[in-house]
Amino acid sequence: MTGAVDAGAPGDGSAEPEPVEAEPVSRDAALIMERCDELATLSSNPEHLERLHLSREHAAANALVGEWMRQAGLSTWQDAAGNQCARLEGSSPDLPALLLGSHIDTVPDAGRYDGMLGVLLAIAVAGRIHSSGRALPFALEVVAFSDEEGTRFGTALLGSRALAGAWDDALFELTDADGITLFEAMQDFGLDPARLPGAARRRESLVGYLEAHIEQGPILEDLGKSLAAVTSIAGARRFSLTMTGKAGHAGGTPFEKRRDALVGASELVVAVEALSREYGTIGTVGRLQAFPGGVNVIPGRVDFSLDLRAEHDADRDTCLRRIRETAEDICARRGLSFESTEIYTAPAVRCDPGLRAAIESGIRSTGDAAPVAFHSRAGHDGVAISSVTDFAMLFIRCAGGISHHPDESVIEADVAVALDAFEAAVWAVAAGYTG
Amino acid sequence: MTGAVDAGAPGDGSAEPEPVEAEPVSRDAALIMERCDELATLSSNPEHLERLHLSREHAAANALVGEWMRQAGLSTWQDAAGNQCARLEGSSPDLPALLLGSHIDTVPDAGRYDGMLGVLLAIAVAGRIHSSGRALPFALEVVAFSDEEGTRFGTALLGSRALAGAWDDALFELTDADGITLFEAMQDFGLDPARLPGAARRRESLVGYLEAHIEQGPILEDLGKSLAAVTSIAGARRFSLTMTGKAGHAGGTPFEKRRDALVGASELVVAVEALSREYGTIGTVGRLQAFPGGVNVIPGRVDFSLDLRAEHDADRDTCLRRIRETAEDICARRGLSFESTEIYTAPAVRCDPGLRAAIESGIRSTGDAAPVAFHSRAGHDGVAISSVTDFAMLFIRCAGGISHHPDESVIEADVAVALDAFEAAVWAVAAGYTG
Repeated sequence: MTGAVDAGAPGDGSAEPEPVEAEPVSRDAALIMERCDELATLSSNPEHLERLHLSREHAAANALVGEWMRQAGLSTWQDAAGNQCARLEGSSPDLPALLLGSHIDTVPDAGRYDGMLGVLLAIAVAGRIHSSGRALPFALEVVAFSDEEGTRFGTALLGSRALAGAWDDALFELTDADGITLFEAMQDFGLDPARLPGAARRRESLVGYLEAHIEQGPILEDLGKSLAAVTSIAGARRFSLTMTGKAGHAGGTPFEKRRDALVGASELVVAVEALSREYGTIGTVGRLQAFPGGVNVIPGRVDFSLDLRAEHDADRDTCLRRIRETAEDICARRGLSFESTEIYTAPAVRCDPGLRAAIESGIRSTGDAAPVAFHSRAGHDGVAISSVTDFAMLFIRCAGGISHHPDESVIEADVAVALDAFEAAVWAVAAGYTG
Repeated sequence: MTGAVDAGAPGDGSAEPEPVEAEPVSRDAALIMERCDELATLSSNPEHLERLHLSREHAAANALVGEWMRQAGLSTWQDAAGNQCARLEGSSPDLPALLLGSHIDTVPDAGRYDGMLGVLLAIAVAGRIHSSGRALPFALEVVAFSDEEGTRFGTALLGSRALAGAWDDALFELTDADGITLFEAMQDFGLDPARLPGAARRRESLVGYLEAHIEQGPILEDLGKSLAAVTSIAGARRFSLTMTGKAGHAGGTPFEKRRDALVGASELVVAVEALSREYGTIGTVGRLQAFPGGVNVIPGRVDFSLDLRAEHDADRDTCLRRIRETAEDICARRGLSFESTEIYTAPAVRCDPGLRAAIESGIRSTGDAAPVAFHSRAGHDGVAISSVTDFAMLFIRCAGGISHHPDESVIEADVAVALDAFEAAVWAVAAGYTG
């Protein structure tokens, strides 16, 4: 195991552990931090970070990540779904591959670590293993998934679904805010939609999937720890909602004649919070816009979204039923109608116990004798990948639990121990690998 | 008085009264209906009617309306604010002018009568008076105001304010949704902002202002009448509001750590309705959008609007104070901040009793022995014009009180009596005119 034992104690805040090898641990972490900054400049918006699936910036990010992959000694390709991939052969050619990775798309007005940090950690681990001259008993592949957030087409995990072979051709008909279909966007990006099935991997060609990711929550910070293993990913369901009433003149139309879609939708937004708290779920309305949108026009339609997740699918679905009943009550009272389209659904998925043990072994190797493990309320590529191979995840502390925001941050010392732990986890998988 | 006495009884639903002159009344009304349809094709959106201030479609509408003005025998010009103007001289040149008019801009997804019908009625009245060969003791001018709705720049009555000399150069800095300033938009339209003061009219050059407009409310329909006089225009105040919290990951952030701007704004939207009902005012949130707008991102900011109007300014201002207190309570409870910018304010303004009497005389001439009169909850160009000359208004029944919606409609028979009444009102002003 190279480098891993040289890290500072986890959470000690030091970015400069004593160098005991020619290449100090902190140099790798510093490079990862610099690369996160560099990727953050590839944005469609000069004022904040927004990098959408199949955009010009996505192409630039794939090119840049591909270059870093080759510098790490890997061979590279872009697959038929726009995922940027790389491979380091194992002790013989054509062995099944352990996948490491995360995603390089972002939410609007994003932070620079969600997804990107996991991709860069994966490249750095592969680079260290390549440099070590020690061969693994399997191939190592790195994937930078093209779409995890679902920002552009409203449906998440498009990159990992393609790789998992869990593709539905109906997805090609998804449209973005400009009415461009996913099919057209793929063509514009230089991809042939007809070849998308070629991105799918066979189960027998894979050893498993490991992902490192910022926690996006406050638990590690509250515990004073740098790293955790993930037990499972909460089940999430997402809906595109529309409440429809009738537009009218804001001055001329008395309240008793109004069918104001925005007042109705607002009642539902408030109810989503109250019901989510009641049922121990997490419900969020992230997107909402009133139409036609004139200052002096009663809104005739509101388009909004609902994201609902819980550790247990049953709690989530009970809460959803109550939200639907509330929407029906509001509509009956206000002369409105309500439509709901499920745009994403994922059951709660469990990390593989063996791979999770390898992650915990990796954490222990950095000096944390009793690694914590907890479930992820956020969705990750592992949800899609679980349909084709086993997976596990390493969580990294982020400040204040803040994510999906420009203030999202990690400290370099945590990145340094995460890199050591992630590399050690790969060697732990190798140690237990029986082919 | 030409034509006026030939109209069918008001509200009899007949579009074909017996022709007793060479030019039947219904032919004028039918032409106005056709022209409303033709203007409705000048839209920035192929699917619905939206014609913004200083847009390409605005230029096309000015050209078309100008052509119709010339066909009616008027001389035409576009003033320094983009208002399309026309003039018919009176018994001698350079007499003060009675203005007739309305606006030709629209809300988003608009109906085809709000504003446009008043412009076309004014042209038809001027055309009839020109054809009659009888000179008025004043000049008659027709104005198609460039901006009444405020759709593009968020601030209403830009055209009529310029004509009234009630211009504030700070208005040049207003921006549209694309960040284009009003100053730049005027230049793009071929107007010189430096010459805008030239659009202002002197009080002594004006006799008054008369406007015909659809009611945009249900009162006339409920009464079974075609026409009404307006007593006053309700005072309105409009605000641009922002509620700010903190964006974050929808999965990772527990409720106790959230500062969700959308749940806060939604509580306020519901409160605006409740408080407006309590204080007898009309409050509307017409525009609302959550940012950054990701399905899986807690909204960190919500931009929305408030339009508040009442017959009595004091009721409106009391209601506004309660809305502000409620916003402060919500923000304190949820860790949010709140900003409010007043983008438009107008006190309640009264129609001139003498001009209103002329309108009522015009209505009586069409067979309605007891014209009704009530106040307008909607704002109109008369609010701005009142600062330079007296005004009065004629209301025309519209179906279901629906306005600011594609379903907005009027019947041709009501347009026929409105035309007769409006023409008769001009002659009534002339009869009482003492120079």
